[in-house]
Amino acid sequence: MEVSHAKVPGGDSGPGRPSHPGLFLTGEAGKSDHLSAGRTVDFPVSVILPAGGTGERTGLQTPKQFCSFLGRPLISYTIQAFERVSWVQIVVVVVAKENMDLMMDIIQRFQHRKVRVVPGGSTRHRSICNGVMALSEEERPAADKPKVVIVHDAVRPFVEEDFLRKIAVAAKEQGAAGAIRPLVSTVIATTSEGYLDHSLERAKYRASEMPQGFTYDVIYQAYQRCTESDFEFGTECLHLALQYCGTNAKLIEGPPTLWKVTYKRDLAAAESIIKDTLAQSACLLTGGLAPAAALTDVLQKAFGALDMRLDVIPDLVGENARCLLKVWNFIQVSVNSSCLSEVEAILVALEAANRALLHPPVVIWVNMSSADEKTINRTVAESAAVMDLASAAKLRNVLLYGIQLHQSEDTERWERSVMKVAEMASALIRDRNPALVGQLLQA
Amino acid sequence: MEVSHAKVPGGDSGPGRPSHPGLFLTGEAGKSDHLSAGRTVDFPVSVILPAGGTGERTGLQTPKQFCSFLGRPLISYTIQAFERVSWVQIVVVVVAKENMDLMMDIIQRFQHRKVRVVPGGSTRHRSICNGVMALSEEERPAADKPKVVIVHDAVRPFVEEDFLRKIAVAAKEQGAAGAIRPLVSTVIATTSEGYLDHSLERAKYRASEMPQGFTYDVIYQAYQRCTESDFEFGTECLHLALQYCGTNAKLIEGPPTLWKVTYKRDLAAAESIIKDTLAQSACLLTGGLAPAAALTDVLQKAFGALDMRLDVIPDLVGENARCLLKVWNFIQVSVNSSCLSEVEAILVALEAANRALLHPPVVIWVNMSSADEKTINRTVAESAAVMDLASAAKLRNVLLYGIQLHQSEDTERWERSVMKVAEMASALIRDRNPALVGQLLQA
Repeated sequence: MEVSHAKVPGGDSGPGRPSHPGLFLTGEAGKSDHLSAGRTVDFPVSVILPAGGTGERTGLQTPKQFCSFLGRPLISYTIQAFERVSWVQIVVVVVAKENMDLMMDIIQRFQHRKVRVVPGGSTRHRSICNGVMALSEEERPAADKPKVVIVHDAVRPFVEEDFLRKIAVAAKEQGAAGAIRPLVSTVIATTSEGYLDHSLERAKYRASEMPQGFTYDVIYQAYQRCTESDFEFGTECLHLALQYCGTNAKLIEGPPTLWKVTYKRDLAAAESIIKDTLAQSACLLTGGLAPAAALTDVLQKAFGALDMRLDVIPDLVGENARCLLKVWNFIQVSVNSSCLSEVEAILVALEAANRALLHPPVVIWVNMSSADEKTINRTVAESAAVMDLASAAKLRNVLLYGIQLHQSEDTERWERSVMKVAEMASALIRDRNPALVGQLLQA
Repeated sequence: MEVSHAKVPGGDSGPGRPSHPGLFLTGEAGKSDHLSAGRTVDFPVSVILPAGGTGERTGLQTPKQFCSFLGRPLISYTIQAFERVSWVQIVVVVVAKENMDLMMDIIQRFQHRKVRVVPGGSTRHRSICNGVMALSEEERPAADKPKVVIVHDAVRPFVEEDFLRKIAVAAKEQGAAGAIRPLVSTVIATTSEGYLDHSLERAKYRASEMPQGFTYDVIYQAYQRCTESDFEFGTECLHLALQYCGTNAKLIEGPPTLWKVTYKRDLAAAESIIKDTLAQSACLLTGGLAPAAALTDVLQKAFGALDMRLDVIPDLVGENARCLLKVWNFIQVSVNSSCLSEVEAILVALEAANRALLHPPVVIWVNMSSADEKTINRTVAESAAVMDLASAAKLRNVLLYGIQLHQSEDTERWERSVMKVAEMASALIRDRNPALVGQLLQA
């Protein structure tokens, strides 16, 4: 068995990678379960990610797992979901031979550290079996041999640590465990002529989803004992564990976010979940300026109404630098400024923290200018400056936009403008549209 | 049974409604099937849309069918899918009593013409049964009594005429017909303790989807004969037809777009399908000006690469006015213009055609200005003019944006600017973002 080890500059804990890459919780996922949250995983766990699919159901050329979201392939999101879990040791990704190079490139670009790439077989079971064998060939101390193997899909990127813990613990106790979901549609049996034979009583059945967990021994033996016909036509690992090891898997209901990206519409759904997650909170940098305070309340209320949190700090100095690793969106307020030095400082700090590696941060420059001065020439110069800086930032995966806020004596007009800033800023943060970077929008 | 007839100004074919509201084909839907396309539906068909759901699975306050997409509730899209089918006579919408007023308001706002609103029952079967009874109480000539009743879901908005025809024809021939889809997940039976009992062989089963069709007699008798327990716990109409009328429904595989909007992620998927559909083509109005021709080729290529068609015409005069009813996106090119009269003309034409009733059209003003003249003052004035016009247009559901394209002697720079126009225009058309209307973007 050929196993390719990804060579990543800096290795497992190199200085190039942020020590805390940031959580990536999904809005739709269930809340932490207090019953399982207390249980720790104190045994070695490895993961197998079959990713050999051709994606024919999306109707796209690119297999789903390699489709990009905000510049990063779906499979990298799934790998990240496991890499951030401290007790996961190795993630074996099984890909079709023709995609090995692509996969190695993804691992290098996004600095994945726990991944081993293994060539896939002609069917799903053969691919997973290759992954199991690769784990047995890992050279490592006996104590590190995985007690539990989690099998997941490359196209289910939103799996949470809490749920993985439930599966791992149940698998260790029962030999096997799997995620289930209620059936959305009634399941019916058809006659060979295409007529209704009978319908199943929905309450008695469940959809079998991923992740599934097995003790190493159970999944190893299941694949040793199963038949060619199982390898060729089967799809359900829980079935092999039952048939060949007598193990009745424990079934655990998972959150709806476990769904499998299958159709073209699922790509839009996945992108929306990723964007919503990145837009959960933003950081408002006031520069400590008094006029900026007038903005703060309105922005906080407007963002709150959209379920977005807005943290207000003067700058990213000292303790406040922590914001760099907590949020993905920064709004810098300047007053009568024609230089972008504060924005440049944010870009430098993001670069130093290697923050743009996994997701593109958004930086919005809000420039408050008094209406009574001669701002026309300045606006044109500022417009060009924002565009230049944004073009450079885009190359480093940072999305920079500008908003010009004209101060006004007319209270009603001023409030309308501030509301417009909030509306545009939240839309820019939500959409992360690369085509609009560098624009100086008018509030 | 209380049946509310929607009072729409202008009635069934009033002058306020466009005679041809435009097709709304989905990108994901299957191609026209030549076998069935030739068969006409020459018998009366009515539709029942149960819409009593509370939407608890989306995790939202608003039931899914009333969630808005581009300013219009999902159920209105579904109603439109049936209203555009000439051989569909009546659409009975069954809603919870507390939503009757909301539903009547939706019918009036979006000028639906074929709808009857009926109060729902406590379960899905009771609601559909109410719909069937309402059809029997319609006062109409005997010849118009529906031969076939199609039952659909309010939260499956993307059903196509071709597929409805297949269901209607098969229902008339067989007594009942239903849409099916392959299973995405393995279906498993669970023990009462939450362990795997057995898994079903995926190939023998299908997911039962909507629409379903029945002869009026079959569905009427099925509901006359079924038990209280069926009414209370059942969900599958095909099952009632089989059990109480001995009718084995014909099962027909439908396209993936038939899926049911169930979870929060499905809202994003539905919105994406709607936006993609509206973005399929655009109309470039050159004013017949020579400098605009320089834009045309680059825009056509850039749009083509995104699978968007770009029709090029000088204006909307004469025959070209047909574009108003074919596309949802208009790009007006002006040269050295400081007035927006051409854009105003488009807005007037859209208003006259009542084009913004169902979807918001996008209008983009691309102003080419030579770099050597004193454009600074003009740009500020233009910026304000675009904003004013866009604010007025937005009230009439039209989204107006501006792009300033500075002409340049430097060929490379000029080409980069034109590519940027294409990139921004296609992004504006795809996103239909209301927060950015009125902006004069810089290319």
